[in-house]
Amino acid sequence: MGAEDRQGCGPLIAPSSESMRPLRQQVFERVRASGLIPRVQLAKDLGVSPASVTTSTSELIEMGYIEEVAAPRPGESGRGRPAVALGVRGAAHCVAGMKLSDREHTAVVVDFAGNMLAGDAVARDPGPSTVEELLAAVELLLDKVCAKAGVARSDLSALGIGVPGFVDHAEGMVHWSSTLAARSVPLAQAVEGRTGLPTAIDNDANLVALAELWFGAGRSLADFAVVTIEHGVGMGFVMNHKLYRGAQRLGLELGHTKVQLDGALCRCGQRGCLEAYVADYALAREAVTALNLNHRNIPSVPVLLESLFAQAREGNGTARSIFKRAGRYLALGLANVVNIFDPALIILSGERMKYDYLYAAETLAEMQDLVINSGRPRPPIEIHAWGDLLWAHGAAALALQGVTERALGGLRDIAAQ
Amino acid sequence: MGAEDRQGCGPLIAPSSESMRPLRQQVFERVRASGLIPRVQLAKDLGVSPASVTTSTSELIEMGYIEEVAAPRPGESGRGRPAVALGVRGAAHCVAGMKLSDREHTAVVVDFAGNMLAGDAVARDPGPSTVEELLAAVELLLDKVCAKAGVARSDLSALGIGVPGFVDHAEGMVHWSSTLAARSVPLAQAVEGRTGLPTAIDNDANLVALAELWFGAGRSLADFAVVTIEHGVGMGFVMNHKLYRGAQRLGLELGHTKVQLDGALCRCGQRGCLEAYVADYALAREAVTALNLNHRNIPSVPVLLESLFAQAREGNGTARSIFKRAGRYLALGLANVVNIFDPALIILSGERMKYDYLYAAETLAEMQDLVINSGRPRPPIEIHAWGDLLWAHGAAALALQGVTERALGGLRDIAAQ
Repeated sequence: MGAEDRQGCGPLIAPSSESMRPLRQQVFERVRASGLIPRVQLAKDLGVSPASVTTSTSELIEMGYIEEVAAPRPGESGRGRPAVALGVRGAAHCVAGMKLSDREHTAVVVDFAGNMLAGDAVARDPGPSTVEELLAAVELLLDKVCAKAGVARSDLSALGIGVPGFVDHAEGMVHWSSTLAARSVPLAQAVEGRTGLPTAIDNDANLVALAELWFGAGRSLADFAVVTIEHGVGMGFVMNHKLYRGAQRLGLELGHTKVQLDGALCRCGQRGCLEAYVADYALAREAVTALNLNHRNIPSVPVLLESLFAQAREGNGTARSIFKRAGRYLALGLANVVNIFDPALIILSGERMKYDYLYAAETLAEMQDLVINSGRPRPPIEIHAWGDLLWAHGAAALALQGVTERALGGLRDIAAQ
Repeated sequence: MGAEDRQGCGPLIAPSSESMRPLRQQVFERVRASGLIPRVQLAKDLGVSPASVTTSTSELIEMGYIEEVAAPRPGESGRGRPAVALGVRGAAHCVAGMKLSDREHTAVVVDFAGNMLAGDAVARDPGPSTVEELLAAVELLLDKVCAKAGVARSDLSALGIGVPGFVDHAEGMVHWSSTLAARSVPLAQAVEGRTGLPTAIDNDANLVALAELWFGAGRSLADFAVVTIEHGVGMGFVMNHKLYRGAQRLGLELGHTKVQLDGALCRCGQRGCLEAYVADYALAREAVTALNLNHRNIPSVPVLLESLFAQAREGNGTARSIFKRAGRYLALGLANVVNIFDPALIILSGERMKYDYLYAAETLAEMQDLVINSGRPRPPIEIHAWGDLLWAHGAAALALQGVTERALGGLRDIAAQ
């Protein structure tokens, strides 16, 4: 380290993907992110000349990816020429998105603009399955949702799938998932082989963040966190308008951050993970003790939790203490997200949000107490309990991203040369 | 959420700073990051035409910011025309960087290429001081290091300062620091008023990450984490070749993430912070118990820790247990960094790295056990115990960044229009 180092010709840093992205692709993504946008605003947003924008938009219109739309001028009473804005042409492509989970798989078919054409779900037995069983379930659900949308499988341009667990998006590999018995499964390739569709997979919580980035909070915010609470605890993070996945695409494992040395046993085999205090299986094992159940006759986890929740509401102190502790650990986990990321917003999502202990006033108050006292307001927390269709919608966004990259990526920015 | 939303004209996302950055500035930054780089490589890295690069480099040479250098061709024996590369022109500017800390303040003077002209330090009494005392110390140190570098204060173009605690770089505000008695101090403005120099401040750990980004690991890596262990525990994170600071510039407070509900008391006033188990004051308070000291006659923290460390080496089990626990909590904190960020590298830095318990084989092994088991190799950990001059060098990089932005920023990319 020091003066000498400056003289050497060190390894070059890789060019940032942002400055390398072709203008046409940037134009398309801005149109997609905006919903509807006039050309002049596009030029302003991208910091390029109106002429460059016109060249790119003409190409995109000719390719059939975007179209001109008469945009309503806010505040005007319909007189005069309507403003012309650009929007993504929905009919250009059609893709499917799917969320695999412990108790059911959910799927949607959307058009190129992200509009949902149909949604459907199939139930499954909890617990890990074989790759073959999973592929059969994917195929069954795909055919069901296609039929509902009135499209043939061959009409689809791509398939996106969200999987809980450690999933490498770039390699299409599931390193570990509660839905699969085997480790290190090249799932994207297996699904492609079975369905004939270009398939992208990702961690399910990442896809909730992607859904928010494309269709929700991401329209106004550069940096935000999504925390999901379902069978496990997941997280996605959008940074500078992009999903951050980590150097090996295995980051954001909030559920497996350690909140207690030598703490409670987690499904992942380690001890003290946040998930081991907050997830449904964690509550269920304490419920067995609290409700004094016979180990030979334990109901399913959802039934057990409903029963525990009912008892807590009726004033059972032991049942309450289970929810209270889970809420406190969730508060700790969320506070750590704030202390680490300082996000503009935290979105809570997932099926378990229906148990209001998780976002009870006292949980949120406890969280505020665990966030560093900087004198600044704490970030807002929003509950987006939209259900599994949102997650599948995020998976569809992943599929659309792939379609767009194959169609528009890899070309040089003509205007910049 | 849903199809309806796609029709609306939602709020526009802000244009990314990357695509807006003028080409001239991008060219300059690539030259700076590379040390020495030929024009043809510049064009390749930035994805623009050689003609655009030539225009920008001619302007930068005319402005005096970069210069042509005869670069040695590797493997050639000096025959033939030498290759011409571009490098930053050191003589263009001169700035100072300073690290404020609990026991001493350190400063460097560097040229525009980051070469160190001089370094110096002044001791201080531990504990919080008044703003006036801090300003006097800054001025004293500034004059000392300028004298040593043989430059006048008026020769400097800017000053960068690293401060421990909650520091908002954009607003120049110290929200809380162990070195200041007051909260919410507009320190950058105060130092500018006192020294007459454009002044930028930042959290000290961010500046270690900036030093690595400019002069160290950042030359080959896009994403890496820096964890500093000194009087407290700090962190900096470089993501996609940029320092990530958080939405309110108050992120990466690893030392104040909670590792134990209702745990040990931290200097920040909260309980269970990582720092409250790992930082020197945390060890010192247990040392008082372990060494059975009289509360009226306790030595200074450094003396206490040296004594504790000596006893641990001599086999004192209680002393050992203090270091062992600190090591285990550090392992937990580092594992959480991996679980969250999945970085390509973790760099450990800071004065306390001299206590080898902190990176003993068993600490690192424990950390590996607390990282999610994805089947992938864990990220490497490097110890960069370069001392305070590195931190001050990072502060100088912050000052250089300001100088560059004032000189080159705010102009549109001519080639892209």
